[in-house]
Amino acid sequence: MIGNNAPVWFGGDYNPEQWPEEVWADDVRLMQRAGVTIATVGVFSWAKLEPRDGEFDFAWLDRVIDGLHAGGVKVDLATATASPPPWLSAAHPEILPVTAEGVRLGVGSRQQYSPSSQVYRQYATRLVRALAERYGAHPAIAAWHINNEYGCHVAQSFDDESAAAFRAWLEAKYGSIEALNHAWGTAFWSQHYAEFSEVGPPRAMPSFPNPTQMLDFHRFSSDALLECYRAELAVLREVTPDIPVTTNFMGFFKPVDYWKWAKEVDFVSDDSYPDPADPLSPAFAAMTRDLMRSLRGGQPWMLMEQTTGAVNWRTRNAPKLPGENRLYSMQSVARGADGILYFQWRQSVAGAEKFHAAMVPHAGEETRIFREVTALGAELSTMGDVVGSRVASSVAIVFDWDSWNALEQAASPAQLVYLDEIMSWHWSLRALGVTVDFVEPGASVDGYSLVIAPALFAVPRSALETLAAVPARGGQLIVSYQTGILDENLHVQQGGYLGPLQAALGVRVEEFAPLAGPDLRGTGTAPVPTTAIRFGDTVRAASVWTELLHADDAEVLATFTEGLADGSPAITRRAAGGPDAQDAAGGTAWYVATRPDTATVYELLLDALGRAGIRPLLDGSNPDVEVVERAGTRWVLNFGRAEATVTVGDDTVTIAAHDLVRLPVA
Amino acid sequence: MIGNNAPVWFGGDYNPEQWPEEVWADDVRLMQRAGVTIATVGVFSWAKLEPRDGEFDFAWLDRVIDGLHAGGVKVDLATATASPPPWLSAAHPEILPVTAEGVRLGVGSRQQYSPSSQVYRQYATRLVRALAERYGAHPAIAAWHINNEYGCHVAQSFDDESAAAFRAWLEAKYGSIEALNHAWGTAFWSQHYAEFSEVGPPRAMPSFPNPTQMLDFHRFSSDALLECYRAELAVLREVTPDIPVTTNFMGFFKPVDYWKWAKEVDFVSDDSYPDPADPLSPAFAAMTRDLMRSLRGGQPWMLMEQTTGAVNWRTRNAPKLPGENRLYSMQSVARGADGILYFQWRQSVAGAEKFHAAMVPHAGEETRIFREVTALGAELSTMGDVVGSRVASSVAIVFDWDSWNALEQAASPAQLVYLDEIMSWHWSLRALGVTVDFVEPGASVDGYSLVIAPALFAVPRSALETLAAVPARGGQLIVSYQTGILDENLHVQQGGYLGPLQAALGVRVEEFAPLAGPDLRGTGTAPVPTTAIRFGDTVRAASVWTELLHADDAEVLATFTEGLADGSPAITRRAAGGPDAQDAAGGTAWYVATRPDTATVYELLLDALGRAGIRPLLDGSNPDVEVVERAGTRWVLNFGRAEATVTVGDDTVTIAAHDLVRLPVA
Amino acid sequence: MIGNNAPVWFGGDYNPEQWPEEVWADDVRLMQRAGVTIATVGVFSWAKLEPRDGEFDFAWLDRVIDGLHAGGVKVDLATATASPPPWLSAAHPEILPVTAEGVRLGVGSRQQYSPSSQVYRQYATRLVRALAERYGAHPAIAAWHINNEYGCHVAQSFDDESAAAFRAWLEAKYGSIEALNHAWGTAFWSQHYAEFSEVGPPRAMPSFPNPTQMLDFHRFSSDALLECYRAELAVLREVTPDIPVTTNFMGFFKPVDYWKWAKEVDFVSDDSYPDPADPLSPAFAAMTRDLMRSLRGGQPWMLMEQTTGAVNWRTRNAPKLPGENRLYSMQSVARGADGILYFQWRQSVAGAEKFHAAMVPHAGEETRIFREVTALGAELSTMGDVVGSRVASSVAIVFDWDSWNALEQAASPAQLVYLDEIMSWHWSLRALGVTVDFVEPGASVDGYSLVIAPALFAVPRSALETLAAVPARGGQLIVSYQTGILDENLHVQQGGYLGPLQAALGVRVEEFAPLAGPDLRGTGTAPVPTTAIRFGDTVRAASVWTELLHADDAEVLATFTEGLADGSPAITRRAAGGPDAQDAAGGTAWYVATRPDTATVYELLLDALGRAGIRPLLDGSNPDVEVVERAGTRWVLNFGRAEATVTVGDDTVTIAAHDLVRLPVA
Repeated sequence: MIGNNAPVWFGGDYNPEQWPEEVWADDVRLMQRAGVTIATVGVFSWAKLEPRDGEFDFAWLDRVIDGLHAGGVKVDLATATASPPPWLSAAHPEILPVTAEGVRLGVGSRQQYSPSSQVYRQYATRLVRALAERYGAHPAIAAWHINNEYGCHVAQSFDDESAAAFRAWLEAKYGSIEALNHAWGTAFWSQHYAEFSEVGPPRAMPSFPNPTQMLDFHRFSSDALLECYRAELAVLREVTPDIPVTTNFMGFFKPVDYWKWAKEVDFVSDDSYPDPADPLSPAFAAMTRDLMRSLRGGQPWMLMEQTTGAVNWRTRNAPKLPGENRLYSMQSVARGADGILYFQWRQSVAGAEKFHAAMVPHAGEETRIFREVTALGAELSTMGDVVGSRVASSVAIVFDWDSWNALEQAASPAQLVYLDEIMSWHWSLRALGVTVDFVEPGASVDGYSLVIAPALFAVPRSALETLAAVPARGGQLIVSYQTGILDENLHVQQGGYLGPLQAALGVRVEEFAPLAGPDLRGTGTAPVPTTAIRFGDTVRAASVWTELLHADDAEVLATFTEGLADGSPAITRRAAGGPDAQDAAGGTAWYVATRPDTATVYELLLDALGRAGIRPLLDGSNPDVEVVERAGTRWVLNFGRAEATVTVGDDTVTIAAHDLVRLPVA
Repeated sequence: MIGNNAPVWFGGDYNPEQWPEEVWADDVRLMQRAGVTIATVGVFSWAKLEPRDGEFDFAWLDRVIDGLHAGGVKVDLATATASPPPWLSAAHPEILPVTAEGVRLGVGSRQQYSPSSQVYRQYATRLVRALAERYGAHPAIAAWHINNEYGCHVAQSFDDESAAAFRAWLEAKYGSIEALNHAWGTAFWSQHYAEFSEVGPPRAMPSFPNPTQMLDFHRFSSDALLECYRAELAVLREVTPDIPVTTNFMGFFKPVDYWKWAKEVDFVSDDSYPDPADPLSPAFAAMTRDLMRSLRGGQPWMLMEQTTGAVNWRTRNAPKLPGENRLYSMQSVARGADGILYFQWRQSVAGAEKFHAAMVPHAGEETRIFREVTALGAELSTMGDVVGSRVASSVAIVFDWDSWNALEQAASPAQLVYLDEIMSWHWSLRALGVTVDFVEPGASVDGYSLVIAPALFAVPRSALETLAAVPARGGQLIVSYQTGILDENLHVQQGGYLGPLQAALGVRVEEFAPLAGPDLRGTGTAPVPTTAIRFGDTVRAASVWTELLHADDAEVLATFTEGLADGSPAITRRAAGGPDAQDAAGGTAWYVATRPDTATVYELLLDALGRAGIRPLLDGSNPDVEVVERAGTRWVLNFGRAEATVTVGDDTVTIAAHDLVRLPVA
Repeated sequence: MIGNNAPVWFGGDYNPEQWPEEVWADDVRLMQRAGVTIATVGVFSWAKLEPRDGEFDFAWLDRVIDGLHAGGVKVDLATATASPPPWLSAAHPEILPVTAEGVRLGVGSRQQYSPSSQVYRQYATRLVRALAERYGAHPAIAAWHINNEYGCHVAQSFDDESAAAFRAWLEAKYGSIEALNHAWGTAFWSQHYAEFSEVGPPRAMPSFPNPTQMLDFHRFSSDALLECYRAELAVLREVTPDIPVTTNFMGFFKPVDYWKWAKEVDFVSDDSYPDPADPLSPAFAAMTRDLMRSLRGGQPWMLMEQTTGAVNWRTRNAPKLPGENRLYSMQSVARGADGILYFQWRQSVAGAEKFHAAMVPHAGEETRIFREVTALGAELSTMGDVVGSRVASSVAIVFDWDSWNALEQAASPAQLVYLDEIMSWHWSLRALGVTVDFVEPGASVDGYSLVIAPALFAVPRSALETLAAVPARGGQLIVSYQTGILDENLHVQQGGYLGPLQAALGVRVEEFAPLAGPDLRGTGTAPVPTTAIRFGDTVRAASVWTELLHADDAEVLATFTEGLADGSPAITRRAAGGPDAQDAAGGTAWYVATRPDTATVYELLLDALGRAGIRPLLDGSNPDVEVVERAGTRWVLNFGRAEATVTVGDDTVTIAAHDLVRLPVA
């Protein structure tokens, strides 16, 4: 990432234009006190940098950057294009985004531009060029921060320019209208298009939209935002080829396919706002860190935004308790981050985020928040040894944006929540002290001894073949329900659900039977019942899903006990091998046709980890505690509100609430 | 219905355009294996039949129909007008429907046309004429299937052409603007119209819409769809006068008044999708079958669509369990159906309904679903004796679309659910083994010895007079709360609630007191409490409604115990007769001012049935079981998931779960 | 208010245009029977008075008013402008209001005009002038009733004319665009405006709107409605300067700032519809009466609308039980009303409110409702002694529309419900038999010995200074959380939350910690947990809020026991005084950083009341009972459904359910 030999980066978004200039010197003083090494400047400065069309005012920014530089603080300089100034949409209302219902969104908040607007891109790149030319040689500039949280409010726009761009995108993708007709399955419901000019985005319509039209519009919209990014990037590459570039991601963000985006940044950066009131937050945050690390194959990444205390955009906003800010920061470092930054440096006194906590709160420097910030800055300054180091993992979970979108479309067997499917596996692995990478479908998984594919719903056949090869080469493979159902066009996989995985797993899925509550009138509000499976001699709870399954060539580990699937296999295991597979000794494939309870998942995972030669570092009994190895250290973090005593490998350690210990790797 | 001497029709929607032509021969082979006798073809084929404006392509359809014919399968030929092709709205965007908020709905799903669009009707009838001329003489054609599920997504459109058509409809109905002003009560809230040009549909407005405007727009919208149907029908009557015509209804479908529509079809057909996860589904389905049979006075009808397994448009979609498909089919036959069809023949691999089950599922012919389909086809093929036979009933429930719409309008005493009011009586009668017909308000009920009017909220005075005559001629009459409140213009009935029923029932309603939970701020989310009534020496639970009632000329069977109605009658009974009514021996009238618990409803019904000379075939103790008589047979169906032993008349029978027995009529 | 020496006014809205003329004489006969002394006429008569543009028809209204006059009934004459006739929007569609999403609202209900429409105002004032000129000298006219429930459906409109008016309003307020930029904090999110022409109302936008833009649009919209009122008032003042003028308020109505409006009416009138099914209704109604009395500094007010039975606009509408109508009426009189009126005189038989109860119900005069009306009319006719008398109070609660709007904006620490914050104090004081006035922030509170400021979130610094002076001059002051956070521009108060109150209270707020349930994905549906505080030796429940508080100069009465605020003060008390404050003997200031349970609130209040020299008349044990003193009488009202025995001061009285007793003031 940012080339330096310094310790872990520490800092945050710095928006000096909100403050009178006399405050700026105090900002630098406090940054030094807090150990800040980098500030992200200019994220929302367009209206200040270009107060009228073509009139640039950089003098104030010169003073800001010079002041930071003099104070020893590096600058992550934003391109300031995230929020166009009011004059731009007043002059060019056609850049404003439009909802699926035809509502044109106006000024007063931020991000009011259509991703496909050429006018927007022209104005944005003109500003970027001016910034790059002015500051490209400034010694304070450590990185470029393009735009901000692409798509966070306007991920899709249905305006006419977007519709035209969508048509062009489709024509480039499909070549002929008949290829589109085939891919979209327009033979159904009389949707056949005679020519591309008849095609549009999925605006409000009478019933369920064509599923492939929906998915293609998701893909197009992600690409349209990416084109905005690329347009800025091209200017920066031309003017300042040596300065690394990033844009801040938002963790598991459905509208944008970060596998594709990550290829275009020099380092991944992420904005992360776990809810302190939610006991699932530590596990969800851990999963997010693992995704960020995985997006560029293990390269260290930067936590670009988090908060010191409470946010202000939930209905009710709990603060981080003492210790939690440090703990989430250390979780990030342990899971591969080389920088810890915040939104924002000094808490606003006006505007829509004035109740969002900051490094310097309203109450000033004599506060528990600023004390914690300062202590963390000091601690991170001692941790140069981790910078640049990698985190090793032998377990991979396949994660796929298309499957996410497709699985959560209406008109499905059951509206599942994709992240719940992913998290049900990641949560258990974390509780067992096993570190997980994420991989893109179709990517090589040769480096992993255990691969898990939960609800990998809609992928090219080749991606299923990649997984089917895992047990054949001696690896361990776990596949859960709703995997391999559709291909990349959302056509049912030829040759049966699971496609080429059928042979590897030794099973066939005949019919789905999602658990469902009474809903005669289709209101969708019925509670979902649970079910039970027989697992060896015991009966275990299971939830979400059942199906009619045939284990033609697999061992049955558990069976369903009621409903359509009564007596049918619920969990199967197939050992690879046999005459044609001499190199497959030890390879195994599990199929899990329901969501079992935690104890059952642990047993399955321990079996698979054992065969994979992976030793869990924890026993799963305290999911508040997690452990990760980086830079020769075991980071053991206790997110619980009580002291915890846990066995980590061969060591027993006691950790205070909201605290951590570091052990040498055994 | 369809004139033939064959056994019960068996088949489904067949959409060969979704498949390569080589599949078609296999379709015919499998149809023969399954015992299919009829296929509905072309429902969504417009874009395939007329790929560009005026360019018709019938060659593929020729081959499909010839192939079916060669295989011995008859064709229910759709007019293909349900989903206009994209080129049509591209050329004529004015045909697209518009919501009350002004959103124009676009292409990408189906049914994107305004019911009042003349352009749509011209294009539709041109296609129908071409189809009729080409296939009218084909020996395979057994029936015409006009359009599909009229109004299922777009029952009302608020576009300008619809507004003009609404004005013309109003002018034809009322003759003068002052007549409209009177009917709509425009003296309230300063809504007086000076001329028809000022009147419009109830588009988005600041507060509660004028109730009669709302109801008239419902009626107009139902009529606008009916005009679409009639326009196609006129072409078919002209070109193929001997082929019977239908359009598929959707059971209890609020936007469209099937009493009016049923007069225009040659036979009724219905689409029926009970939720397998809902224990109310069998009873609701039974009620729907009874409506379908009643719509044309007992004429056999056709189950045009159902599913073999799960649908895909609920939030979570449970499959039909083994046996349930057969059971729902036999329920339909027992309640008057002469045909059992499905949506659809072969499960789609793409599009918005690919997860909707079919006769041939994704997993192919070696499946429990195809086995059940084949077994059912074989069973139905032996049941020619039922075809054309009638189902007898001595009990009628009055069902009214205007009351449905009016009762569920906002600005009412309480937002009741009309179908719950109907079902609370039908459910109990079904549990007692008593078969029920539905009748239109105002229609003769002379053939029924027991007539029930639940929440007959808004009907012409004459319809109340028809009911008032029932006890006078010796019949039994049960009337429940919220009957006879408004007339056909939604004016309060003159002379008191219940109008002419007051004398027949011997009661007066002074004031409503619907049960209500705390709702100071009008959020409408408070749970509704229950209440209690004193019934003889016992206290019984009651729900939904209470009112301040006077039994001036009736026996009080139960009284309220709290609230405004404390001590006031809750259930009354009045024996007709006296000096002026010598022919009224045995006539009785009940008024029920609340919704009593099931035991109380049973007691009331047993009293009424006894006086009516009707012997219940069941005792109500197992509502999973129902019995109907048709064609000399008692069909006893067990929808329960456990074996049931029940007494049917004088017989005691044991029925397996999801199974049935047929007994001779005693 | 209305100058007369008569007893308490009694009557209601009278809409004779809904009835044939032969009914009018019967109306007068029944009014006389019921003791009606005043009728509000013409509220929805525009379409009848001006059936076409400029064609006025007053003949029918002449006969109505003459008939009432002959019958001894005075007239509160409405200006009839609340619901423009259809011809007006047909000719001028630009007057129709538009939602934030751009939907133009049409005819069919009522109030379909944009408050900023000049065309609407011209037509409205032309009608008002015609009415004033025709009836200004009629001896029956007792008052003018301008419009009706301003803003109840359309409080804000986003049409282009409103946008232009908003810009003009902003320019008049701020003078320069830079002043607006500063006030709105547009430096955040790049919202800086170069000129006023770029500014608009907060139409639909991608994310959280600028908070100050939102608040200014609220203020502007309230003012736009007030301009409508003023335009009519100007005509009436010119033509009929001696007739008093009012417009009917709607209690705690968020969109309109009644402090500002009350200055422009001759007497306050209110429409009040407590839900009879809600046990909170009596307390909420009492609070509303106190607001109405306070709006014009204690001047008697008029209950302009209530219902005799049920309304019809809730989801389920419970009737008032026998006695409740009288009880709510007497509550109003006791709390300062000099008139008791209803919507409406005779229940409609058509239109959107036909199920709304009236003085003469559908069932006519032989009904419990008409009997109760008649008895109440007779009782009120004997109560001339109360007319014009004042209600004394020594306790004030500060109530502020800006704080209401700001506190309930999104992007806040927690979405609190402002009325709950107010009511949590008023409810307890009412239960203790203590009468409360409301005061405007910044107004003098010198007349009150106890002042309470709950969640006084966003006020000018000067308003906080006014409160800070209370303990200094010997008064008692209670301040709750979320007070003094923002100024009138919604900037954080300089110098710390609470601003100048910090010194008076002796506390500093460091950080908020609102109670919050788990909400990782921001759905906002998590239940809010409660917490506990240690109060002396006991642990008490508390809810809604906690915060990190420092009591640098105050006594700690209670402390938090968990979370961020664990160990931090929850309730503090500071006695004023010391060398610089010799006149401050006895002054005390409490700060309450949570919402304590009722027992704790009672203890706090009893402490404060004791120091203030106020003796509670009740002990709080029966919140169904309230007591108020007016005209030398203690009105003791029992809203419970059971008989109550309570101690009132030194008397013990027993009151029947839904009844009252009057005691002499001790």
